[in-house]
Amino acid sequence: MDNPTSRLLVAALLTASLCEPGPVQPAPGPLVRMAELEIDPDQLDRYRAAVTEEIETSIRAEPGVLAIYAVAVRDAPTQLRFFEIYADAAAYSAHLESAHFKKYLEITRPMIKSRKLIETVPVMLGAKADGLAGGRRVP
Amino acid sequence: MDNPTSRLLVAALLTASLCEPGPVQPAPGPLVRMAELEIDPDQLDRYRAAVTEEIETSIRAEPGVLAIYAVAVRDAPTQLRFFEIYADAAAYSAHLESAHFKKYLEITRPMIKSRKLIETVPVMLGAKADGLAGGRRVP
Repeated sequence: MDNPTSRLLVAALLTASLCEPGPVQPAPGPLVRMAELEIDPDQLDRYRAAVTEEIETSIRAEPGVLAIYAVAVRDAPTQLRFFEIYADAAAYSAHLESAHFKKYLEITRPMIKSRKLIETVPVMLGAKADGLAGGRRVP
Repeated sequence: MDNPTSRLLVAALLTASLCEPGPVQPAPGPLVRMAELEIDPDQLDRYRAAVTEEIETSIRAEPGVLAIYAVAVRDAPTQLRFFEIYADAAAYSAHLESAHFKKYLEITRPMIKSRKLIETVPVMLGAKADGLAGGRRVP
């Protein structure tokens, strides 16, 4: 937060966008994945605690996990949206194989009513270097 | 990138989530907005150039614009998804009133076939302090 320099990332063009959907293809630069989850309302508090812990651990322990954002749709608190940025496809694969992610999957499986994954191709990823410095940080 | 310290932000709980949808309500902490746009395929290149410029300018010129990410759905390059983080509701309002955003709106109006805005409440916003340092930066 002492350095307000903005930091911008111009991502790859859409050259791979006509590929058929499927497993993540290795590609240079960041990999962005989105997800839409619907949570069992009776287990929402427990799910939120589990996913918060999973995000904290991933950011702290995995060099290639650049950001994981989880938000709820404003008028539908059981509908969660995720926006996740990995350094590259290898970092994403490593995340899927991590012990904390597997634990999260196992714990939360009965809490999740539906899950939609959306593979994406970055157009423009713009962020300040100190983008989230204004909030409360853990630890 | 010299400082690998992870930076985590724990955002506000869902206390406002039962409010009816509507204009942005002032609330402490970051405001996250998502959007889903469908672009006229014949104008996709021009749209991408315009939105890239708009994001670059917003990150550079507006202290309260923390991040604007634009991605395309992998198998549908005209379907764009946006994930935007503002310091607070006032920063979001200032962005909407900025000259560069108004210019972007005017230029791109005929290029956009549909637009869906999604107001959200943060659950957990986790990001590395140097999260996007691995990419190409402008300037």
